Amino acid sequence: MKHVSNDYLKELITEYRPYTTKGEVMADLPCLDNQNQNDLGIAMIDMDNQIYKAGSTDLSFSLQSVSKIISLMVALQDLGEEKVFQTVGMEPMGDFFNTISHLESNDVHRPYNPMVNAGAIAICSLIKGDSVQERFERIMSMLKTITNNENISYDNSVYQAEKRKGDRNRALAYYMSSTGAVALDPEEALDLYFRINSISFTVEDLARVGLFIANGGKLLNDNEQLISDKHLQTLQAIMMTSGMYNESGNFAVKVGFPCKSGVSGSIVSVVPGRYGIGVIGPAINEKGNSVGGGKILERLSSDLNLNLFSHSI
Amino acid sequence: MKHVSNDYLKELITEYRPYTTKGEVMADLPCLDNQNQNDLGIAMIDMDNQIYKAGSTDLSFSLQSVSKIISLMVALQDLGEEKVFQTVGMEPMGDFFNTISHLESNDVHRPYNPMVNAGAIAICSLIKGDSVQERFERIMSMLKTITNNENISYDNSVYQAEKRKGDRNRALAYYMSSTGAVALDPEEALDLYFRINSISFTVEDLARVGLFIANGGKLLNDNEQLISDKHLQTLQAIMMTSGMYNESGNFAVKVGFPCKSGVSGSIVSVVPGRYGIGVIGPAINEKGNSVGGGKILERLSSDLNLNLFSHSI
Amino acid sequence: MKHVSNDYLKELITEYRPYTTKGEVMADLPCLDNQNQNDLGIAMIDMDNQIYKAGSTDLSFSLQSVSKIISLMVALQDLGEEKVFQTVGMEPMGDFFNTISHLESNDVHRPYNPMVNAGAIAICSLIKGDSVQERFERIMSMLKTITNNENISYDNSVYQAEKRKGDRNRALAYYMSSTGAVALDPEEALDLYFRINSISFTVEDLARVGLFIANGGKLLNDNEQLISDKHLQTLQAIMMTSGMYNESGNFAVKVGFPCKSGVSGSIVSVVPGRYGIGVIGPAINEKGNSVGGGKILERLSSDLNLNLFSHSI
Amino acid sequence: MKHVSNDYLKELITEYRPYTTKGEVMADLPCLDNQNQNDLGIAMIDMDNQIYKAGSTDLSFSLQSVSKIISLMVALQDLGEEKVFQTVGMEPMGDFFNTISHLESNDVHRPYNPMVNAGAIAICSLIKGDSVQERFERIMSMLKTITNNENISYDNSVYQAEKRKGDRNRALAYYMSSTGAVALDPEEALDLYFRINSISFTVEDLARVGLFIANGGKLLNDNEQLISDKHLQTLQAIMMTSGMYNESGNFAVKVGFPCKSGVSGSIVSVVPGRYGIGVIGPAINEKGNSVGGGKILERLSSDLNLNLFSHSI
Repeated sequence: MKHVSNDYLKELITEYRPYTTKGEVMADLPCLDNQNQNDLGIAMIDMDNQIYKAGSTDLSFSLQSVSKIISLMVALQDLGEEKVFQTVGMEPMGDFFNTISHLESNDVHRPYNPMVNAGAIAICSLIKGDSVQERFERIMSMLKTITNNENISYDNSVYQAEKRKGDRNRALAYYMSSTGAVALDPEEALDLYFRINSISFTVEDLARVGLFIANGGKLLNDNEQLISDKHLQTLQAIMMTSGMYNESGNFAVKVGFPCKSGVSGSIVSVVPGRYGIGVIGPAINEKGNSVGGGKILERLSSDLNLNLFSHSI
Repeated sequence: MKHVSNDYLKELITEYRPYTTKGEVMADLPCLDNQNQNDLGIAMIDMDNQIYKAGSTDLSFSLQSVSKIISLMVALQDLGEEKVFQTVGMEPMGDFFNTISHLESNDVHRPYNPMVNAGAIAICSLIKGDSVQERFERIMSMLKTITNNENISYDNSVYQAEKRKGDRNRALAYYMSSTGAVALDPEEALDLYFRINSISFTVEDLARVGLFIANGGKLLNDNEQLISDKHLQTLQAIMMTSGMYNESGNFAVKVGFPCKSGVSGSIVSVVPGRYGIGVIGPAINEKGNSVGGGKILERLSSDLNLNLFSHSI
Repeated sequence: MKHVSNDYLKELITEYRPYTTKGEVMADLPCLDNQNQNDLGIAMIDMDNQIYKAGSTDLSFSLQSVSKIISLMVALQDLGEEKVFQTVGMEPMGDFFNTISHLESNDVHRPYNPMVNAGAIAICSLIKGDSVQERFERIMSMLKTITNNENISYDNSVYQAEKRKGDRNRALAYYMSSTGAVALDPEEALDLYFRINSISFTVEDLARVGLFIANGGKLLNDNEQLISDKHLQTLQAIMMTSGMYNESGNFAVKVGFPCKSGVSGSIVSVVPGRYGIGVIGPAINEKGNSVGGGKILERLSSDLNLNLFSHSI
Repeated sequence: MKHVSNDYLKELITEYRPYTTKGEVMADLPCLDNQNQNDLGIAMIDMDNQIYKAGSTDLSFSLQSVSKIISLMVALQDLGEEKVFQTVGMEPMGDFFNTISHLESNDVHRPYNPMVNAGAIAICSLIKGDSVQERFERIMSMLKTITNNENISYDNSVYQAEKRKGDRNRALAYYMSSTGAVALDPEEALDLYFRINSISFTVEDLARVGLFIANGGKLLNDNEQLISDKHLQTLQAIMMTSGMYNESGNFAVKVGFPCKSGVSGSIVSVVPGRYGIGVIGPAINEKGNSVGGGKILERLSSDLNLNLFSHSI
């Protein structure tokens, strides 16, 4: 079995960089553009707080759908599982993440899960706070603690773009409001959703988030339980079944540990009790997932025996 | 943390038996009827081959959808992952297991995964053998080896009932034939499908199958790799995302290890590297899963720290 | 064969009033409420400008979906058929009028036809005018001419209610905007849509609109072709296939001439070259159509041999 | 206004023959092949029994979906409207004629209407007779009377091909059987369905069927009411809303009288009280309708003022 090292990760970046040509950088997202087509970076942190990095580690990108695990984490802590899952389901779905039909076709008009856009917008409506601003600051504060990075901020140009091209998400929010399945103020929920999508991260920040989950909701060397252990098991189960859009089954098979991707080409991964991993590779496939990032995670899983379904883990 | 023992399992059976009143025994399945409403049984085997049992351990039931993991296992061994997943997808789906619409709505008209009826019928068409009889005997032979039970047989009355009330499955098979997405002989594929659904098991047989998977494809105390380790990781990932019908997400969250259920009220579970588990509880909920069985697995996961997403496993 | 007379219509009202107990008055629409449960009224005008009336002829109600034929008529006149039907289809659809799934499932994401909400909102975006106000005034002006009623106005309380409970329609508008299938300003299109839904009519006004269509786009005793004859044939064909929500097939069979209903319980009908008919009966069935109104039209068709598919018309 | 004559029809054939290059002859149907790409023929009979013909009037073709109006006509006569429409709906549907999803998505799992394959198969199960053979003979006997052509027969090679490539229709039949929405013997219903699809016609035979409907269910110069007048109004309404696959709305707008097409490129049309029309043009568009045939009907409607929605008919 291989061992993690900076050199090892560097080799992987070199080996899988050619795959970046097989995807496309998401159009219309400020910050990333065609110049980032071949970027590929990774950070990996173990439970001894040892960090390994390679590739585009300085690249800053917006969270996009990775924010869905942040908002779910906060909502679970705010309200508990029972209340959260009265509003949003926890079942995987075979359709695209921005589908609206699934809200119409199921009897209760509830989003299938918190990883699809409708679900994440609904989750945003649950987070505690007297205003969008206050809710956003609570999330930012949590993220700064988890990443141990006081400089986490959001990218206003991305936020403005999200609002400008947000009609599909508006449709989802208004549809949910119309059925009464989710009692939300559409514009407020969308505003928070657009803002957290616009938070800027590096792969190390991603890896810190992954590590926090992998460590069961505590910072390393700290006894404070910031988020309940049980909630994070729930979060990981949902990442495993639904975290990679309608390629989640493929990742469960090929990678075998919980991941969540964003259309910026980022992926945050959790190997419970072992690693937090962050990957960036802006060239994404037609499902919305980083092409190079997916290949690297598959290889890591195999080389380091990280597949949760392995009998010899 | 609790430890497994016959007494512990007996306590669980007693505690959760009242839940059997909340489900219904599947109508029209010979063998099981309303007299089995309150049956509840479990067997659990660890890697030292120690077996623990309680409740309705003598009850014989037909595999029903549990057969879907058997046929997938054999097909993967026969043809490899590439070929199998050209025919059937590996993505979870939010709809009911016997849905036909999903075959029409996706561009390639392929079953979403091998755990839905259409997928399992397609998988049956892939298994090697010159005749349905030969294919069936290969599967039976494999099962006898895995369960170490030469007496495994199929229940002809169930098989006849499956054929008699099999029009939904016929529709699925003929539909797949009509689109050409799956090159199958509908009647042959259905015949094998109906037969393996009719195989009779006890909870110990189920637990043996679970243990074989948990042990990575070898019998305990044997070095022969009967099924590739990688194929069984694939199988478990698919069980995790799709094994419990459209309640799979719920089981991933609440139980956190791979399970596969059948409408006979049986569930086979795998805790990789640790346990094989078999449960029977014929009273099923509207999703098709054993009510009492589900509650017991949830409790076991919690008591014994079996959730794969736990950081302290 | 019967002949139309006030007495004859009065008999029909008496005979079919009991059917008003089988429907429900649309909740949340100002103006009409449970006190209107048993209202039933009809006006019928022939090509000699002879008007026959009976029942609740003074009852004022909002157009609701009847406005869909007004906006289509104006859009056809403004832009011609080619342009209009590039934006909205002309095919009937089996689903409910406020469905959003159909926009997602068809390849071009176009509304199926101008009689479903999405289609009517799209049509509103096509009507010429520099502002919503100007477009609305053009429509009002046309309606005043057609009905020969200078007092036609809109009900502000209905308009405000439409806006307040309009989230489903907002979802439709934003969804269309998001796919780019319809180049519309969602809020402007919705504003016009809500306004024309709120226009107040009586059954005589409805009958005048029907008569105008039945006369091929001219006022009686006037040579001016206000709307092209061909456009009105198109309009009638669409009313016939899609005018009565997902009960359109049933009305084509039972009534056999073009009709358009609104959830206020109104129906406008056209017997080409013969009659314009207006009906009001606020008690509607689960499809959205006036229960008593439907029965009266079915009887009229039979008594007066109005079915277009009759060989002896 | 133009008048019908052989010369006039000949001009139309010449003018619209170029459109035959824009379609494709249905593959896999014996009898018609690429040699028939440019065939185009028409027959038109008025109420004085005057027949006008031009083009490929000798071409023999199989009825295909035109048979759906024959079986509906017989079923209505056998059982009455109430019973027939308890089994099959009468609402148009926006999807393709061979769709299976619509059976799953609606609550009662009933075919939307008798013009889609599922509906027509269900209708076949209703027709009276002790055997498929007897039912088929009853239909043939009716057709021979209506067409005044004792030589009407079915093409065994087409029938065999229908059976051989009939898996989609088998899926529909078995699906309906599985839901219990239609109490049918799938193989028997399919056998009758395949046989009547294989009946050979010429355009004159088609026109005779159209004329019979246009005359309200009597042969010209005969007082016997073979099929009830009301049933034929129902049939025409269903043709108008659903007869031309998912191009029915387009035909209602462009042509404006009831038509029913088959994938052999045939169309039967009814102008109530005036004409029966038969058209053949094997080159069909992607919706399944004859390209040249559609153009000719549109022109006829306009030239001869046949649109039922015309005020001056």
